[in-house]
Amino acid sequence: MTENTPQRRLRLGMVGGGPGAFIGAVHRMASRLDDDYELVAAAPSSDAGRALAGGLELGLAADRIYGDFRAMATREAAREDGIDVVAIVVPNHLHYDVARAFLLAGTHVICDKPLTTTRADAEALLALARERKLLVALTHNYTGYPLVRAARDMVHAGAIGEVRVVQVEYAQDWLAQPIESGGHKQAEWRTDPARAGPAGCLGDIGSHAAHLASFITGMNPSEINAELATFVAGRRVDDHVQVMLRYANGARGMLWASQVAAGEENALRLRVYGSRGSLRWCQEQPNELWFAELGSPLQRLTRGTSGLPESAIAAARLPAGHPEGFIEAFAQLYRDFAADVRDHARGQPVSTLRVPGLEDGVRSLAFIEAALQSHARGSAWVTLS
Amino acid sequence: MTENTPQRRLRLGMVGGGPGAFIGAVHRMASRLDDDYELVAAAPSSDAGRALAGGLELGLAADRIYGDFRAMATREAAREDGIDVVAIVVPNHLHYDVARAFLLAGTHVICDKPLTTTRADAEALLALARERKLLVALTHNYTGYPLVRAARDMVHAGAIGEVRVVQVEYAQDWLAQPIESGGHKQAEWRTDPARAGPAGCLGDIGSHAAHLASFITGMNPSEINAELATFVAGRRVDDHVQVMLRYANGARGMLWASQVAAGEENALRLRVYGSRGSLRWCQEQPNELWFAELGSPLQRLTRGTSGLPESAIAAARLPAGHPEGFIEAFAQLYRDFAADVRDHARGQPVSTLRVPGLEDGVRSLAFIEAALQSHARGSAWVTLS
Amino acid sequence: MTENTPQRRLRLGMVGGGPGAFIGAVHRMASRLDDDYELVAAAPSSDAGRALAGGLELGLAADRIYGDFRAMATREAAREDGIDVVAIVVPNHLHYDVARAFLLAGTHVICDKPLTTTRADAEALLALARERKLLVALTHNYTGYPLVRAARDMVHAGAIGEVRVVQVEYAQDWLAQPIESGGHKQAEWRTDPARAGPAGCLGDIGSHAAHLASFITGMNPSEINAELATFVAGRRVDDHVQVMLRYANGARGMLWASQVAAGEENALRLRVYGSRGSLRWCQEQPNELWFAELGSPLQRLTRGTSGLPESAIAAARLPAGHPEGFIEAFAQLYRDFAADVRDHARGQPVSTLRVPGLEDGVRSLAFIEAALQSHARGSAWVTLS
Amino acid sequence: MTENTPQRRLRLGMVGGGPGAFIGAVHRMASRLDDDYELVAAAPSSDAGRALAGGLELGLAADRIYGDFRAMATREAAREDGIDVVAIVVPNHLHYDVARAFLLAGTHVICDKPLTTTRADAEALLALARERKLLVALTHNYTGYPLVRAARDMVHAGAIGEVRVVQVEYAQDWLAQPIESGGHKQAEWRTDPARAGPAGCLGDIGSHAAHLASFITGMNPSEINAELATFVAGRRVDDHVQVMLRYANGARGMLWASQVAAGEENALRLRVYGSRGSLRWCQEQPNELWFAELGSPLQRLTRGTSGLPESAIAAARLPAGHPEGFIEAFAQLYRDFAADVRDHARGQPVSTLRVPGLEDGVRSLAFIEAALQSHARGSAWVTLS
Repeated sequence: MTENTPQRRLRLGMVGGGPGAFIGAVHRMASRLDDDYELVAAAPSSDAGRALAGGLELGLAADRIYGDFRAMATREAAREDGIDVVAIVVPNHLHYDVARAFLLAGTHVICDKPLTTTRADAEALLALARERKLLVALTHNYTGYPLVRAARDMVHAGAIGEVRVVQVEYAQDWLAQPIESGGHKQAEWRTDPARAGPAGCLGDIGSHAAHLASFITGMNPSEINAELATFVAGRRVDDHVQVMLRYANGARGMLWASQVAAGEENALRLRVYGSRGSLRWCQEQPNELWFAELGSPLQRLTRGTSGLPESAIAAARLPAGHPEGFIEAFAQLYRDFAADVRDHARGQPVSTLRVPGLEDGVRSLAFIEAALQSHARGSAWVTLS
Repeated sequence: MTENTPQRRLRLGMVGGGPGAFIGAVHRMASRLDDDYELVAAAPSSDAGRALAGGLELGLAADRIYGDFRAMATREAAREDGIDVVAIVVPNHLHYDVARAFLLAGTHVICDKPLTTTRADAEALLALARERKLLVALTHNYTGYPLVRAARDMVHAGAIGEVRVVQVEYAQDWLAQPIESGGHKQAEWRTDPARAGPAGCLGDIGSHAAHLASFITGMNPSEINAELATFVAGRRVDDHVQVMLRYANGARGMLWASQVAAGEENALRLRVYGSRGSLRWCQEQPNELWFAELGSPLQRLTRGTSGLPESAIAAARLPAGHPEGFIEAFAQLYRDFAADVRDHARGQPVSTLRVPGLEDGVRSLAFIEAALQSHARGSAWVTLS
Repeated sequence: MTENTPQRRLRLGMVGGGPGAFIGAVHRMASRLDDDYELVAAAPSSDAGRALAGGLELGLAADRIYGDFRAMATREAAREDGIDVVAIVVPNHLHYDVARAFLLAGTHVICDKPLTTTRADAEALLALARERKLLVALTHNYTGYPLVRAARDMVHAGAIGEVRVVQVEYAQDWLAQPIESGGHKQAEWRTDPARAGPAGCLGDIGSHAAHLASFITGMNPSEINAELATFVAGRRVDDHVQVMLRYANGARGMLWASQVAAGEENALRLRVYGSRGSLRWCQEQPNELWFAELGSPLQRLTRGTSGLPESAIAAARLPAGHPEGFIEAFAQLYRDFAADVRDHARGQPVSTLRVPGLEDGVRSLAFIEAALQSHARGSAWVTLS
Repeated sequence: MTENTPQRRLRLGMVGGGPGAFIGAVHRMASRLDDDYELVAAAPSSDAGRALAGGLELGLAADRIYGDFRAMATREAAREDGIDVVAIVVPNHLHYDVARAFLLAGTHVICDKPLTTTRADAEALLALARERKLLVALTHNYTGYPLVRAARDMVHAGAIGEVRVVQVEYAQDWLAQPIESGGHKQAEWRTDPARAGPAGCLGDIGSHAAHLASFITGMNPSEINAELATFVAGRRVDDHVQVMLRYANGARGMLWASQVAAGEENALRLRVYGSRGSLRWCQEQPNELWFAELGSPLQRLTRGTSGLPESAIAAARLPAGHPEGFIEAFAQLYRDFAADVRDHARGQPVSTLRVPGLEDGVRSLAFIEAALQSHARGSAWVTLS
């Protein structure tokens, strides 16, 4: 259980996420929770009038509110008190341009996932960030949960032996009906290939599932075999994806993601079975991690207890029995990234373990593209490079 | 909640299942529970001495104990008080010969699954039973659970709308280590292709999973795409199988079965998602069925309550809150089959809905053969005919 | 996992429990499950015509069907092939007379709880049985669950240290409305003080809760403080009872029983907290026992696993993951009692550990009477002697 | 799902809660989450040096850091930019003096519970706040959970009919051993009657349980009957309390609180049974509320869904399936109180429904004093006035 020691708060800017937007609000709460950031600038809309109104509503000074992200990037970079970090919470198709603009301006970036809509773009950003020596966090926010980190470290330490089977799934039902035709803004852009990219459910939540599995197992699949489906008539992207996974060490796995699974809310679940034991975690009950050792009773590990790996203890704010949730996990990425940015500012090496970044983004796009390709080829096995 | 009204008890014979055998004991408890059967004859072993010892231990008269199933079939058929029904609980490779012998002798059959080790054999038995107008029950025992029947009837009645996604799995860990090399009798024959057939985990529990999904959804997959794996070194059959499913109505699904899933005991789980709702059931908590209607709270339906479909009410023995289990579900097949046999004896039509039979056996072998074929062809889609 | 080796089946008689009666059917299924008994005689009703009809329906020979339990006791005792054991499943107020008649006739007894409606009667039966050296089992059936026995043995072995706190409850809702006025037979007699005794919910299920707590902790409360309530207008007995418990070692506890707890089915739950750990068990999920050691993760012990105490292993019929339920637990008492009766017949000492008996019955009546007395005295503490 | 629209942030001061203190950190996170407050002043310690160090660590200006709460009260009141609200997070015995000082200075107060260590003090604060027309929030933080509010509104709307039975408990194990002798700061003061008051577990968490029950049922017990116990040798206050409850409408109930319940983390659980249904909620799984209507399946209501009462919708920040936790619930009180303070500043009527306040504090002390009195009188019934 830790509370951050405030140093100077980092100055945060935000592109997208005007008042009312779900994910923008989450980013703001996450940035505030541990007192590491102060939101000082934003480009909440590309419409100047709406941008101003939104920015004022967020409590920003008028001269820090922008209708154009490029202007924001350059003008903030020019200020003495300009932003240290920008959070990018626009639809997927804009991630690349916005991220590029801020990297070129020398600003560290926190970007929603998927990083871009093509792998080539993702790789271009990676190259740029490396060249500029800037930091980029990708909000694979589920890795911020303390018990997800515990699971990763336990697998790495051999607690379940050699990994044999990965079962990961992410099921929701918010797109079980064609709400994109009924004026639901978020559904509109997320089912629009022009804004979301060619992958619907696959890109939106399938990528989270794939990332979580890789994060915890420490292994990327070597080959996948996928099928996409669209159950809601008229929908322009997939709303269901099923994937079989092969790993280099011989492990096998399955990944399922659906946005039409009636009765499911936000059910990201991972189970990993190894030669000696297994681990199970579900995002909807994030404060417990089930650990089985072959031949011994199932154990319920809980967040905030002292027997967990150090990474899980560091990421908890409260004692056991005091539930933490989605915002806390999201905030953990913000907190870790703040530490990285401060290390960077001091010229110190930056942890590459804690916060997902551009490499994760590239791998994620590779996964998405391979799944699309496998589907197009009748669920043929496709090698992930 | 019902209790059977005893009429004359049916005379039951058993082939296999000497004292100490797991499944033989289950069959005997199941046959006794509702007082519809009396065990009067058996061929517990092909070794005459062991057969006699075993039969006496089971309380049988010496002249009803046989060392040879063929002798038993003919001699029982010749007796005035010969058996009405034979239960076949030998290893898979013998199912065909034993079932054939008793059908030829005019005896109704209760047979463990899988029915045979090849689809051709299964079809031959089906043809024979039809010709002789005899009844055969296949112990896909999980269909005896009241809430499995409730789920089937609810899907059929449209409670979840059009089926979209099927997620079924059967995970165990008893073969997580090479116990077949350590003298474990059941592991020995179940991992021996000569006795279990070419499919290991696939045939043993994958077939249960496939059957349960078909039973509840009322749909058989039209195409499947499978991969088998063997995780334990030296094992001669698969101990893990993952399958993707396509249905004629456009539904999709995944099936996973594993006998090396550390920490899993006997976790047969089915989730079916439709256009309007979903159902979830797990064998380890068989007295509850989770039902979600889109936009409404998840409901926990419990066995023994009055709002369930009639089939589920008929199959329960106890009021809600008084758990029933594996034996009761198994006994339900015995109870239903007794009613079928009595109907048959009275020349009345026999329900084809309640007890899985030869058609199920043929379908199951078709599934197994298609999965083997798909695996051999690099997980290509194979049409189920 | 064990199956009984049949020896001669014990000849069982039954008083009460005509066709359709819930608990009579349970006793019959329980007696059949392990093949230790054969039902050969019954007095299903005090009405001769109804007795005959009922007995025939149960498959009994006409000369073993009685309209009068006293006649049954003497005539069965006089037969060469008379019953070995009688099961008494009549309303509470008749337990004493029926049990006495069979004990006087020299027959072992299995009796429903509560043993009698007064402590004095219970003590008289205890004296009689001791004098005649006969065996009496009292169907505190929840003690037949393997994990209840595991819990008892773990507490006894010190797994949770010194017991500090007992929380036990038994909640149902079947009497949440005045169904006794609507023709519900079981509700009628259970809410009729003349047939059920002066305690309603207290005697019916409160006594089960008290017994379970004593069985598992190995301790009887030394003082109790109780309040009864009747929520349904017109009801003649309590339908809710709450009790505070003090133990000689300083432990404290609470007991709650209700038959008007809307939404509860048959929720008998026990939690015992000691100086070093705790145990939790709930009858509705009887195949799992939760064990916590101070400072370690909660563990889920499951029936059928090898690490459990010997008593729990002996009482399981199936491997882990194959749920057993209420009937199996009930049958366990029958199975254990059969072993006791056989030991008794061979002149061997009889286990006093496995099957609850007359001492339990006396203690239970003492508890009930103390609770009634405490309630009458404004919830004053009453010493249990 | 709502995000607050920032207006001017309220200026917050804090007394107690130096860096490292658990509850101070919680208050600060709660105050930041919705961006309604800015921490600008503090008296983190009565030791001037430690106060300064702690305040600087919290990022405060040196002239807003105080070693004396009385000085802080008067000097902040004198500043143009003085605090609007003070949060009091000192040990219980200081609540009265600190709260009084700030009320006298005209500052609104957020105070940890229990409000004071005697009922008389609580009443004095209530009188003072009324006289000065100032607002006081008492952090009965569990009332900030959306589903707790849903439960309250459902009971009020008659969803479960007339309340019959209340079962509330709060179980922890952090004091299962004498850690107060081992240098554990929080344990030291919480088990010291001079600092915590005469009630240990009763005051610390029993009071939360009692409050939650009253909050949700809308009823205060009319009489209680209590017993306290101290299990850990040498401990100077109770660490276990059990209470029976009577309500004016005839309802009954039980309350249990323990800090020595091995294996329990922070298990505040409430179950309320009425004539038509019931509700169950547990703090450790706060995103679900179980609702049963007599004769219908149990329903799992989840936070963030649209069918909930308006109060629950307003108190949620995220969609269903995205768990919220302890901090969010705590923050809800801060958010609601900010709205109250702003209403107050505008001369508008202040909601008395949302945030627990001084009346709750007085009732809580009355409950504590009655429980102590009942215990002293051998668990006699004591009337709550």
